[in-house]
Amino acid sequence: MSIDKITVVKIGGNVVDDPQALDEFIGNFSRMEGAVILVHGGGKEATRLSKALGIETTMINGRRVTDSDTLNVVTMVYAGLINKRIVSKLQACGVNAMGLSGADAGVVRAVKRNVSDIDFGFVGDMLPDSVDAGVLTMLLEHGITPVFCAIMHDGHGQLLNCNADTVASTVAIASSRIAPTCLTFCFEKAGVLADPDDETTMIPEITRESYLSLRDRNIVSGGMLPKIDNAFAAIDSGVGQVHIKHASNLLNDKATVIRP
Amino acid sequence: MSIDKITVVKIGGNVVDDPQALDEFIGNFSRMEGAVILVHGGGKEATRLSKALGIETTMINGRRVTDSDTLNVVTMVYAGLINKRIVSKLQACGVNAMGLSGADAGVVRAVKRNVSDIDFGFVGDMLPDSVDAGVLTMLLEHGITPVFCAIMHDGHGQLLNCNADTVASTVAIASSRIAPTCLTFCFEKAGVLADPDDETTMIPEITRESYLSLRDRNIVSGGMLPKIDNAFAAIDSGVGQVHIKHASNLLNDKATVIRP
Repeated sequence: MSIDKITVVKIGGNVVDDPQALDEFIGNFSRMEGAVILVHGGGKEATRLSKALGIETTMINGRRVTDSDTLNVVTMVYAGLINKRIVSKLQACGVNAMGLSGADAGVVRAVKRNVSDIDFGFVGDMLPDSVDAGVLTMLLEHGITPVFCAIMHDGHGQLLNCNADTVASTVAIASSRIAPTCLTFCFEKAGVLADPDDETTMIPEITRESYLSLRDRNIVSGGMLPKIDNAFAAIDSGVGQVHIKHASNLLNDKATVIRP
Repeated sequence: MSIDKITVVKIGGNVVDDPQALDEFIGNFSRMEGAVILVHGGGKEATRLSKALGIETTMINGRRVTDSDTLNVVTMVYAGLINKRIVSKLQACGVNAMGLSGADAGVVRAVKRNVSDIDFGFVGDMLPDSVDAGVLTMLLEHGITPVFCAIMHDGHGQLLNCNADTVASTVAIASSRIAPTCLTFCFEKAGVLADPDDETTMIPEITRESYLSLRDRNIVSGGMLPKIDNAFAAIDSGVGQVHIKHASNLLNDKATVIRP
């Protein structure tokens, strides 16, 4: 199978956590055309399992502090439960999905984050050349849809908990070396909203110029900032377009489109 | 990479449970030559996690009764924690390992076991044509070492808990269509022992004829019977030889060899 274009889709924890939303998403995803790669977030299951096991969950700046016990929990939940649940549901919809952590076929490496002010523990960051594009090409050419969780490895036997948005943009950058690539972040809102409480205020297009203005006027703030920074990083490194949209809009063009 | 021969190695729960034995095994496994496939059992981690979560573990004839909660536990432990732990350790030893459940790329299907006397719940059995040999061939030709856990799927979105010995023999039968295949069961004993308490009584060779005699004289009994039945089933379906040996003997020829 020759690859003309690639779409990398990331779904967030809110979709993963809601069985009905997940089934709807999977149905839509199975109707996408061309080569597709899925990256999924974690959701609240890991926090629930930690709690049940008496492991304290500490979040700093939205990132999970990952000690050894927490690493076991997220490996079980993200790479095991959620990944295989999604893969088996996609298989049932005729998508030849294959679940991947970064360790599998060494497809994505990460480096353990240095301890500076905060010790995040077994949390990893990816470098631009973290992805083995040869493995991705092999899978896509065989009609296989890679389904990534955000558990990566350092190549020296250590698993690392990574940010799923960053996994998505890192994978999209690598896949843009294979074919023109579009990156789509799906979450529980219609896109980037001018008023976070009003879905009708979705901003249809953000360029680097308009982003500066939106930031300065505090129209875009909080958790949306790293998402858009990630998007521009992807565009700067070869990804054609980045879409930010509601998961239920996967098959239509309602989205905030991030362009150079 | 052309494939001249394939070795399918199965490691049991006792190796998986013992960090030192597992590291030793992984070091030896990384020195094996030619195309290799690893199948791993579960060990006691799933039982420990079930207990911590207040889920009762019921075993009947050595098989785990798998209700919905237990399926989540074994999916987390086998497909997540243990599979990714082994894969990342193999990667660190230079083996390009890729973890697989049966759902991944639809590589192995199972059918839910019918309820007769006992309802095992979400337990699956495999049919002779359960394995997609095309996926195995693709991976092996790219120098990738498949690492299977025993979580399979039915193709309709349902994950199923399967017996790892049976996964190993089913995969070995499929790989014998690709190249001459040897199946090696590694566990915590030197092989099939005439006296289960005396490692020096390892029986070097069992044929179908000698097996009947060993069974009739009650020299081989209990949990060893299904293992040997599995071995003969594999041989009847194209696997060249089956070795039963101690995990630490992976690289030498100390083993009970099952021949036609």
